[in-house]
Amino acid sequence: MQTKLEGRTKTYFVDTEGPTTLIGEKINPTGNKRLLAALKAGDHEFVRALAVDQVATGADLVDINVGVPGLNEPELMENIVKIVSEAVDVPLCIDSPNFEALKAALFAAPGRPLINSVNAEEASLERVLPMVKDRDCAVIGLTIDEKGIPKDVDTRLRLAGKILERASRYNIPTEDVIIDPLVLAVSTDHEAAAKTLDAIQQIRAEFGVSINLGASNVSFGLPDRHTLNQSFMALAIAAGANCLITDPFRLCLTMRATDLLLGRDAFSGRYIGHYRSMQSRDS
Amino acid sequence: MQTKLEGRTKTYFVDTEGPTTLIGEKINPTGNKRLLAALKAGDHEFVRALAVDQVATGADLVDINVGVPGLNEPELMENIVKIVSEAVDVPLCIDSPNFEALKAALFAAPGRPLINSVNAEEASLERVLPMVKDRDCAVIGLTIDEKGIPKDVDTRLRLAGKILERASRYNIPTEDVIIDPLVLAVSTDHEAAAKTLDAIQQIRAEFGVSINLGASNVSFGLPDRHTLNQSFMALAIAAGANCLITDPFRLCLTMRATDLLLGRDAFSGRYIGHYRSMQSRDS
Repeated sequence: MQTKLEGRTKTYFVDTEGPTTLIGEKINPTGNKRLLAALKAGDHEFVRALAVDQVATGADLVDINVGVPGLNEPELMENIVKIVSEAVDVPLCIDSPNFEALKAALFAAPGRPLINSVNAEEASLERVLPMVKDRDCAVIGLTIDEKGIPKDVDTRLRLAGKILERASRYNIPTEDVIIDPLVLAVSTDHEAAAKTLDAIQQIRAEFGVSINLGASNVSFGLPDRHTLNQSFMALAIAAGANCLITDPFRLCLTMRATDLLLGRDAFSGRYIGHYRSMQSRDS
Repeated sequence: MQTKLEGRTKTYFVDTEGPTTLIGEKINPTGNKRLLAALKAGDHEFVRALAVDQVATGADLVDINVGVPGLNEPELMENIVKIVSEAVDVPLCIDSPNFEALKAALFAAPGRPLINSVNAEEASLERVLPMVKDRDCAVIGLTIDEKGIPKDVDTRLRLAGKILERASRYNIPTEDVIIDPLVLAVSTDHEAAAKTLDAIQQIRAEFGVSINLGASNVSFGLPDRHTLNQSFMALAIAAGANCLITDPFRLCLTMRATDLLLGRDAFSGRYIGHYRSMQSRDS
């Protein structure tokens, strides 16, 4: 199954049968003091460079999250979307829980962006799905509802079905919904990752849709998070996740390595190409 | 299924349901000039330290390979086995294609060692399996025969069956044979790793035995081999490999991370324990 996305000049397909999609996560002020300061100061050059560097390092899409307490998110989102879409030609991933910010971003974004995200709460379904339909774009559907992130696999499967069923009522085609089964930290539940891996397999088998995942929450609260994130990325891709929101600077090579090991990179071309581009950037 | 092994004082079980077993691979002169020189010079302190450090870093077993052109392998093997078995209390993995060296090692080793390896060639089956029976120990069975390492999955499955069937004729119980489906370099065949992962799953499903793998051949000929080895380790464990011959210094944390992410490490105890022990060694 393919989800068609478009940036300013580039068309990109998230593809259940293709190599894994990397959504660059770095334009997000949570835990990034330099970006937070840049957004507050209106220093857009920093944001622009973050977008350009991520794409140069292998990001297929660029996520944009500008939620900063005290700033007008719809206005800021519109500005940053314009700046990023002029800086890079790949599709954008519009990341906000604020409906007005989503609306402003969808208006400003070129092509066919990806909304991050709708979830299975009524308030979210009723607000976000009409935007997806009207704007003719795609959306990430999180398997979360009024009760929070389900700990079990069955509820995630049910919520994925609910989101897909609601989307179909709006005549949004299944391929325009990418399901994200979410992962909790293994530090609080040592079966959390295993359950998410199980959910990925089951949702993929049941609905055939693309599966997205944020690949760093899993290691929260533990030492050497990078090693955990690397292993989890490999496990998630093998289970059927074909789209990852992550740090391209630190994890693109692991993603390419995993695709190669799963037989999805003829002549190691993408792996070696990424390695060489990193080398030339470092030198 | 459990394979009982014994060192000088320690009993250890390779367990299909347990955490992954790490066989420390560092006592092997191939590509290790310092060890090669130490073996030639009869500097056994270097070998002893390699054994002790590997066990301190998380190796559950210590592999001993002393094949050095020009040296008397049976005599050297006997000496090194004695030295290592006095230095560490874990079981030994006796690694040689030389039948006389295996015989000498089995005579010198305490407890219940693991032979690395028998394969599906007649000459190997006829020589090694009687030793396994007579010595009452365990053995790694490589799915390779006179024609070399099979590229396909079916032949590996057939050779695993052949080794297990032959073992049973010698009244060697199934649990004393650990199957190694081998992995070829992805640089020469980009589907090589995927086939091995498939073979792991199928051999495990068909025979229920423990699966061993060397986790570094896969990356031969490619840059940043460590990243590839890390990803492959995660994929192999998820596919059903429960025993890995590898470098504990570089890959034990990835192994513990993967076990944790697969729900096999309650309260992250083994992962955190390993991290802390590395920290205290570094400081």
